[in-house]
Order: sequence, then structure tokens, then C-alpha cells
Amino acid sequence: MKDASPGTANPHPAVNDIRLTKGITVAELVRQFRNSGFQTHNIAVAAEILGKMAENNATIFLSFTSNIAASGIRGIIIDLVKRKKVHALVASSGALDEDITRAKMPYLQGTFEADDAELGRKGINRMGNLFVPNECYEYLEEKVTAVLKKIYNGSSSHDFTATQLIRQIGLNLDTEDSFVYHAARNGIPIFCPGISDGAVGLQLAFFQQTHPDFKVNELKSAIEAIDFAMSAKKEGSGKVGAIILGGGIAKHHTIISNILGGGLDYAIYVNSSSPYHGSLSGATTSEAKSWGKIGEDAADVTVYGDASVVFPLLIASNEHFLG
Amino acid sequence: MKDASPGTANPHPAVNDIRLTKGITVAELVRQFRNSGFQTHNIAVAAEILGKMAENNATIFLSFTSNIAASGIRGIIIDLVKRKKVHALVASSGALDEDITRAKMPYLQGTFEADDAELGRKGINRMGNLFVPNECYEYLEEKVTAVLKKIYNGSSSHDFTATQLIRQIGLNLDTEDSFVYHAARNGIPIFCPGISDGAVGLQLAFFQQTHPDFKVNELKSAIEAIDFAMSAKKEGSGKVGAIILGGGIAKHHTIISNILGGGLDYAIYVNSSSPYHGSLSGATTSEAKSWGKIGEDAADVTVYGDASVVFPLLIASNEHFLG
Amino acid sequence: MKDASPGTANPHPAVNDIRLTKGITVAELVRQFRNSGFQTHNIAVAAEILGKMAENNATIFLSFTSNIAASGIRGIIIDLVKRKKVHALVASSGALDEDITRAKMPYLQGTFEADDAELGRKGINRMGNLFVPNECYEYLEEKVTAVLKKIYNGSSSHDFTATQLIRQIGLNLDTEDSFVYHAARNGIPIFCPGISDGAVGLQLAFFQQTHPDFKVNELKSAIEAIDFAMSAKKEGSGKVGAIILGGGIAKHHTIISNILGGGLDYAIYVNSSSPYHGSLSGATTSEAKSWGKIGEDAADVTVYGDASVVFPLLIASNEHFLG
Amino acid sequence: MKDASPGTANPHPAVNDIRLTKGITVAELVRQFRNSGFQTHNIAVAAEILGKMAENNATIFLSFTSNIAASGIRGIIIDLVKRKKVHALVASSGALDEDITRAKMPYLQGTFEADDAELGRKGINRMGNLFVPNECYEYLEEKVTAVLKKIYNGSSSHDFTATQLIRQIGLNLDTEDSFVYHAARNGIPIFCPGISDGAVGLQLAFFQQTHPDFKVNELKSAIEAIDFAMSAKKEGSGKVGAIILGGGIAKHHTIISNILGGGLDYAIYVNSSSPYHGSLSGATTSEAKSWGKIGEDAADVTVYGDASVVFPLLIASNEHFLG
Repeated sequence: MKDASPGTANPHPAVNDIRLTKGITVAELVRQFRNSGFQTHNIAVAAEILGKMAENNATIFLSFTSNIAASGIRGIIIDLVKRKKVHALVASSGALDEDITRAKMPYLQGTFEADDAELGRKGINRMGNLFVPNECYEYLEEKVTAVLKKIYNGSSSHDFTATQLIRQIGLNLDTEDSFVYHAARNGIPIFCPGISDGAVGLQLAFFQQTHPDFKVNELKSAIEAIDFAMSAKKEGSGKVGAIILGGGIAKHHTIISNILGGGLDYAIYVNSSSPYHGSLSGATTSEAKSWGKIGEDAADVTVYGDASVVFPLLIASNEHFLG
Repeated sequence: MKDASPGTANPHPAVNDIRLTKGITVAELVRQFRNSGFQTHNIAVAAEILGKMAENNATIFLSFTSNIAASGIRGIIIDLVKRKKVHALVASSGALDEDITRAKMPYLQGTFEADDAELGRKGINRMGNLFVPNECYEYLEEKVTAVLKKIYNGSSSHDFTATQLIRQIGLNLDTEDSFVYHAARNGIPIFCPGISDGAVGLQLAFFQQTHPDFKVNELKSAIEAIDFAMSAKKEGSGKVGAIILGGGIAKHHTIISNILGGGLDYAIYVNSSSPYHGSLSGATTSEAKSWGKIGEDAADVTVYGDASVVFPLLIASNEHFLG
Repeated sequence: MKDASPGTANPHPAVNDIRLTKGITVAELVRQFRNSGFQTHNIAVAAEILGKMAENNATIFLSFTSNIAASGIRGIIIDLVKRKKVHALVASSGALDEDITRAKMPYLQGTFEADDAELGRKGINRMGNLFVPNECYEYLEEKVTAVLKKIYNGSSSHDFTATQLIRQIGLNLDTEDSFVYHAARNGIPIFCPGISDGAVGLQLAFFQQTHPDFKVNELKSAIEAIDFAMSAKKEGSGKVGAIILGGGIAKHHTIISNILGGGLDYAIYVNSSSPYHGSLSGATTSEAKSWGKIGEDAADVTVYGDASVVFPLLIASNEHFLG
Repeated sequence: MKDASPGTANPHPAVNDIRLTKGITVAELVRQFRNSGFQTHNIAVAAEILGKMAENNATIFLSFTSNIAASGIRGIIIDLVKRKKVHALVASSGALDEDITRAKMPYLQGTFEADDAELGRKGINRMGNLFVPNECYEYLEEKVTAVLKKIYNGSSSHDFTATQLIRQIGLNLDTEDSFVYHAARNGIPIFCPGISDGAVGLQLAFFQQTHPDFKVNELKSAIEAIDFAMSAKKEGSGKVGAIILGGGIAKHHTIISNILGGGLDYAIYVNSSSPYHGSLSGATTSEAKSWGKIGEDAADVTVYGDASVVFPLLIASNEHFLG
């Protein structure tokens, strides 16, 4: 039987009644969550695992979907990348769109219950309760095209991995308000399988139509992620961890890249999908152990909740990741 | 089209990137949640509505399911009741079990992935990732039977509403670590439709078998809740609000009791069920407006998440409810 | 490790590719679901368990929430009760409202995305994607009041259990299009904890205000359910099964009533809630085994899905329950 | 206000009580689902939209995630492709793994509640309640490597789009039990963004390491999907529809490919994710209209359920897609 506090004298401690005080910090609240049941417990366990990743100098993958980059969580990601607190990002293509656009053009806080036909007529695109005006994409297209020209003209080889290309884009951004910018400068790779599947991706594809030798080498991109993960196992602490916000291709790419190295040593999933329909997005850390994507002895937890709520609680609870 | 910031100059403000700092308080984090997308936004809106309830001296109903009383949230409820920050509780029958038992006997933090047959053989009952040892129920049965004898012998009438009976139980508890205890002393009614459906409820039913004139008047209990809600509309500020954690009969009882008075003026639902299967547990505050359970001009929000995580964030963000 | 086909030579059979043909029956499709993965598998297992209940002459509880009675599933329940294929109903109070009203007044197929304020102004109440015109409740109030007068005047004792009262109501209905009607005539008890919490319930409560000796004996009602369950264990096959559609108090009442008899022998849950937030509505059959609500050796399954979709598939797959 | 039966004399028809008879067909049941509430209604609407796609000779995209290809639904997909009833497939990379492997090596029906560490030690990988023995991947690696050698040696250019490469793989398969096989022979393109992210994908990447000029042109692959969608708008009926099972990159790729052509004319989403966390997987057809991914006047519906259950109901209800 799995323990709630593995390796301790008391594997099933008494439930703790939460006591709130004026000015209570997030760290103190999450500490109180430890034995308070349901997802409070899982959040506190996730915070502990995050602490172990830091203590043991693990190489940390942070995986997220594009909507996360469209939300306020992007600020946390920027700071983590700027401070080199995570060591690789794995993102779906749309995450590039959101990061590059929002560096200059704001997305808007809208509502889930909007009239979508009316929004469409007003030139507003809805993503949950966020609104993205068409101008954002107009800006993005112009910006990316300009950057691509610069990259193309400045490089003799035009066959890029997705990671190399994103790094070049990052080096050519002129704003610090971007994780693509800081990742490029801090040597943090951004792995992005299926890079064509987004607005930046479409610009890349259109650019290729006028510059046929401009290519993204999808297969070499995958090898880069695997190599990064395997190197991490051989260097430094030899420990690898992952924080996986949501599902999609970013989630799968993170874990498949870690199989050959023997699986992740630390894994935190924040899922809003159910495990009972067999999707990878809803898959648990436990399931990943059967595949060797997460090591049998790993410290791992699946938190069931909204990543935009859970992730700030986790990071705000660990001084290592702050300031 | 519904606004994200109704009544303000900027109904759809720019998305805010969250910035975490060492020692960040829950209140500050929730403030940053305001325009950060997805459920962060809904949580911040709920915190604002909670603030309005306090400012406008609304009569506040707090509705919750029994698992909430089994979790660490019980500590927050005890403090709210002790400080008279909420004015009526609506709970499913099991919530009485958890409150009275946990005053003396701890529940345990377990795991969702336990071997349930093995747990059963060990005399442990699982509620999500909480473990309830059989001893808890043995204690409860003894305690409740003793209290019932006292109440029965001390009262000439033996026909109680559920609320009257719970108050009597509360007055006869000898521990302050209980919301039933404090509610009784603070004149805060606990409405509990279907009181027979739990461990305390079974003890009541068994007690009736030896004391046939001992009765819970289910219909009069309902009138008490309606009268309380209607009186709240006529007295003081005339405003009524509800914080509804989870679903079940407690949720429905809270809103049906408020129809005759014209519907709630403030409503916060924290739902973990989907609205797309038609259950009351998954029903939204918007749906309730069609019924008049929530007033057409009410301030309301449905937060989609785990109540044990969301509720502490809400309360910790509002000084009015603390200390 | 739990088997997918317990007790067979091949506990983990090959996945079956579904082959659809013109005129394929529901029974054939569900047969093909058996080894087809995810919830198809769970549905086929549920159909098998249903078959075992029939073969072994189990006493069958059917538990459901009020929205189920508002949907097309009500037709299936009426037929099952009429043909005595189930032996006890456990329902939330609202289910009485829907059954009695719909016998005469139609509910409407609406949409989830309605403008609820507009609906409210038009006198239409929304329940998911069903619309309930106010006239329905006007009819119900009049009907129930008339029936109550008749029951009251025709009976010397005015202290009813919920089950007795519902039976009396059923006997006084003048339409066959109702499960309350057929249950009354076929000796099938309807257990309804918290009967006050609905539109019929409010009429009962209002009736009590003018007839103070008219009472629902909530505690005796609970004993009736327990006695029924315990008797079923002692008579006939001695086997008891339950089909539990959705959650709420009906679900809990069904399983708590079966603890004293040693737990259910067969159990099918159809859940639309997640088990990870600790609610009873999301609780699994496995969890119930730790409590003894379901016997350790029971045949049981939790299907994750919309009960209005799953239940017709189950019943249509078993000739025993048809015609 | 959106209508439940748009364009009819009765936009909100009476709720229909379902009546089951012996030997009832799936088509008849789904017909009865039409006005029966909750997801029964949405399934029946989806079946109607599917009928319109057939009647109006729409070009049909079928999008699915890899777990769907691992389940019994693969049989339905094979038949649809064989009979040319759908015109393009969009799949995540893993779907290739499941299709090619299962043509020769069975996956197993397991359980969600397995001991994952034990499974891992036994060489079994879990995907929800499906079990995939390691031998499957050993077979796949050998098979794919052999096929790649043949393709490589038989072609002068070694720069493929994903779609071209999958077609070549299909032409080199020696079993009819595969949708990759039939799609190749029937001129049905399989779009697969992020093809590297799976077991077949890894073999492609490893093959490149020994054959550096072997490439997947990710950007050209995206243009192929767009061109296909735009051509469909100009040819034949000019109508384009999509059936999207689950989420992930396949879902997004389907809808983004249809923006430039003016959006889908028919769209059916089957979602198991919630729309309230902002993920694309949980996004609704309504949301897609704000983006122009689905046309403003399209016939569209979002069904909330398990795709492995819903999809067979839809296809079995439409003779056009059968036999």
C-alpha cells in the first residue's frame, strides 16, 4: 500500500485542520496543506518534490501547453528562466506565439461565457476566458518574418532543429519580457515538437515557400531532446526532474525523451484531464512508471487541478525558485 | 456579452503576468490572479465577491459536503463560526459525523491509490485520500448515544427539527474543536436536510427505535431554512450571500431556501463536477439565475476546482474573515 | 493485480477492434465493447454484472438523481418499474417533482448555452440543456396539494415515512406515465432521504403549516431502507445489487443502507464526477469496499460517463430487463 | 438564444422518454436520444451533423489521438478509410505506433487499477486500461527499420513530408489490418504534426543518424495540410467537415489547417476535457468560431464524453458510413 508520507515513521499522519491568519504566506499555507486531504495534500507533496529537485541539483524540465503561456503563468516562467532555476522548456508551438506576442501586445482578460460569433466579428479570438485580438497576430506575423529574414541571412546553413531556430529567434528579440529571449541568452533549450502547428509555425512554413532551403529538421530536433536528457543523467547530480503543466505533445515529448536515460527521478504532473479515458493528457505519473518514463523509485505526484492555480502555489512555496 | 470586470472603465483588462517574490502572501497572490486567466481569474473574482459580502454586511450561508468536513477545511469552518463571520451552515449529514468525531479522534492522511480490500480488512474506511479508522465510528456511536439520552431526558418535547437537534448536540459537546459546538453557542443554525443519511443519522434512527416519540421533523426543518433566508432579506442590510463548496443536497438546500426571498445577492460556487451532465452538483451560478435561486443582478461566480484548495485561498485573501 | 476478465483462463485478452455493420443492435455493440478499451470496456463489464444480477435473482436497487428523472431516462425507469425488473428506487427529492410533472406537462429540450437571465425573465428554468417552464411547477403545486388533502383525509395516522407517503401519492396519481404510479402499484418502495428538498417537498412543508400533525418521519424512513436491504439478504437468492446513476444523497443512501446486511453483492456506479476531490459523488465502487458498503467479493464496476448515455446502453443489452 | 433544433418550427421540443425494446438498434437508440437531454441530445445532434456531411458530400477530416488508435475504435477507422468514407486523417505520432503494431501484435485489455511498478517489471506498459507488452515495440522497431531501408533505397529524394513518408510506409505494409495501409492505397492523406514524438518517430530519428540526408520536412508537411483543406473548399461540394476525437496536436492541426479556407462547415468535437482550464483539448466548437477555425454558420456540436464510446454510436447511426 502506497504511503502518504513515504519513508517516515508515520506513513499516515493525522489530518491537519488548516488555520488561517492575517498575512499568511503561500509557503505557510502549502505547509499546512500537507496532511489536509484531497488535492491540498497532493499540492504539498508536489512542493516537497520540487524542494528535493532543488536540493539535489536535478536538471529540471518544465513542460507546458500554449494556454499556459497565454496566462499569467508566463510571468513565473520568465522569472524561472531568467534566474536559471529550470534547465529545459518543452512547449507546444502555440506557446511561442503567446510569448513573443505578449512581449509587446497584451492579451485580454475575458470571460468563458462570451458570444463567440460576436467575438469573431469583432476580431477577437477566445481561449477559455482570455481574449486575443487579431492585431496580436498581425504584429506576430510581421515580427517573426523580420526575425526570420535576419536569421536566414546571417546563417550559412538553413537546416535548423526547432530548438536551434527558437534560440535564434530569442537572440533576435528586442524585449526582456519573454522566456524565449531569456532562454536563448541563458543556454536553456526550448524543445518544441510539431513547431509548425501554430502562428509562428505558419510563418516558418510560409517563409519556406519563398526560401525552399529553409528547413526545420524535425527528426534531429527529437535527438536533441534525448541527448539533453541523457547528458543530464551523466553530469552533475545525475538526477533529472520534470514539472509538467497540462498535457498535449509537450507532456509526451518530455517523458519520451527521458526513457532512454532510465526515466525521470522526480516528476510532478498537474492534470485537468481525467485518467479514465486513456488520453496521455490525463495519464498519471504512476502510469508513466510502467513505461519507464518515470523511474520506479522516483519521487512523483499527480496533482488534479488547474495548472494556472497550482503552479504559482508550488513555486511560491520554495525559496530556491524565487529571487 | 458578459464583462470580466463588470462596471469598470475597462471591462476586459490586459492579462497580468504573475510575479512571485519571497514571502508572498496568499492575499497578494490572489490579487495578482485577478487578470491572469482561467481559474486564477475566477478565484480572484470570488475573493472580490466575498469582500463585497463583508462590506455590505450580508447574511452569509456556507454550504459544504461531508468530505469537506473530513479535510483540513474543517479548521477554517470552525474559525469562521467561532468568529461569527458566517451566519448559517448548510451541510450534508455526514459533515456532522466528521466534525464530532474529529474533535476527539483523528482521521488520517492516506492515498487515493490504496488497496481497498486490504484497507477494509484492516478496519480502515477510505474517503478519497483520507483514511477513517473504524474506531472513529465506535467513538461516535457511543458519544452520540450519550448526548441523545441527555437531550431526550432534558426536553419535554421530543419532536425536533434537524437544526434544533444539532444545536442541542452542539450544546452538549465538551470540546471547542468543533463547528457544531461553536455554532450552537453563537446562534448560527446548521441546516441539514436528510439528516438520517450518515453515522450520526443512523444513531438518531436507532435511538428512535427505543424512544418512538423521538422524531426529526423533516418538513419543519425545511421551513426553518426558508424562514431564516427570508428574515435575512428583511433585516439589516437585506443582502444574502452564499459560499457553496461542492454539490449534493447541501448545495440545493441552500439555493432552494433562498428562492422565496428573491434569490441570493452574492453567490460563490466551487464545483468539481462538470455542468454538461445536468447534475445539480455541476450546475453553475448562471443556471441558478434562470430559477431565481440567485438574483438576476447578483454578484456571482462559479470556480471550477477542488474546494479544499480554493476555499483557503478565498478566506486567506480577506482580512474581514480572519482573526 | 486486478484482472480485466476475472476468473477466466485469459485475464487480459487481446484488444478487440470494433466492426460496425448496418442495423447493428445495441446488444451487439456492447458485446464488442468488452475488450475495446477505456470506458467501452467498463460499460461492457457493467452489462455483464447486470446480467448476473438478473440470473441470480438479486434484489436490485436503482438509485438516481433528479436530473435523470428530468431526462429521457425516465422512460426506461418507468418500464423497469412497470415490469418489476428493479425492486427499490432511491431518489433525491427532485426526482419526484420531475416524474409527477412530466406525467402531464412536458419539459423541453434546450441548450447548455442559453442566456439564463433572459430565460428567467421568460419564466423558464434551466437544468443543463433541459428547460422547465414555470407552468410545470404551477401544475405540480396544485396537483400535490390536491393529492395531499386526499391522503390526509383518508388516513387516521398522519405520521408518514417518506416511502409511505410517496406510495400514497403514487396510488392517487391518475396517469400511468409515471414511475411513482407504477412503483406504488407494484410494491416497489421509493426511498427518498431529505424529501423536503424539492418542489414536492416544499408543498409537503407548506401543507404541514396548515395541518401541523402531518409529518414525515425522517428517522423511520431510514430504518425502512435498512430493513428492506437486510430482508433482501435473508430472502430468495440472498443477493443484493445496485445500479447507481450519478451521486448525491441517493447514492449514499443506497450504499449506507446496505452496510448492515454485509454490503452489496453487485454494484454498478455511473459517475460523472472525479474521484480525486474526495466527494461521495465521485467515489468509486472500490472505495466503497473499504467501508463494507460493497462486499469484498462483489462484482462491481465504476463507469466514468454521462448516466443518460450509459444507462440505456446497459439496459438495452440485457433482454431480461426488456419487454 | 441558441436553439436545440435550429431552423425548425419547434426550436425547443418536448423531452422524449426513451423506450427500449428487444433488439433495439444503435440507430434507433440514437434517434431517441434526440430530445432526451444532457449528452444524449448532443450525441444525436452530432449524428445529424454527420448525416449532413454525407448528404452534402463534404470532405471529411477525422482527427484522433494515439490512445484512440490503441482501442477498439481502430477497427472503425480502418473500415472508414477502406470504404473512403473519410478523406483525411489527422493523428498524433503515437497513432502510427498503435496501428502498425496492432496489425501483427495484440494489445491487451487490462485495468486502470494495475500496480504500475509491477507491470513495468513484467515488461508491460499501461495506457489507461490497455496493456502494451514490450514485445510490441520490439516488433515495431524491426518492422519500421526494414520498411525505412526499403523506402530510402527506392527513392532518389530523401526529404519527405510526414504525409509522404506515412504513405510510403503504408504502401510497404503487408497487412490489410491497418488504416495506414488502406489510407496509402486509397489516396487518403494522414497528417501527423510532430511525427518524431512516438516510437515510429524515434525509429525515424535513429534512421537519420545513420542516413543524415533522410529528413522529415516539418514545415512543408504543414503546407500540405493547408493546401488539402483549401483545395477541398474549391472542389466538389466546397464543404469541409471534421470529426475530432479528443484533443492534442491532432485537434489543433485540423482546425488551424482550415482557417485559411474560411473555417470548417461541419464540426463534431468529442471532448473528455473541461473547457474551464483553457486548454485546446477542452476547447469547444463555439470557441473555435471566434477564431474562424469553424465558420460562423457551421453546423457544429461539442459532445462531452469518452470518444471510444461516443464515436461508435455516431458511425453506427449513419448507413452512409457503413458497408
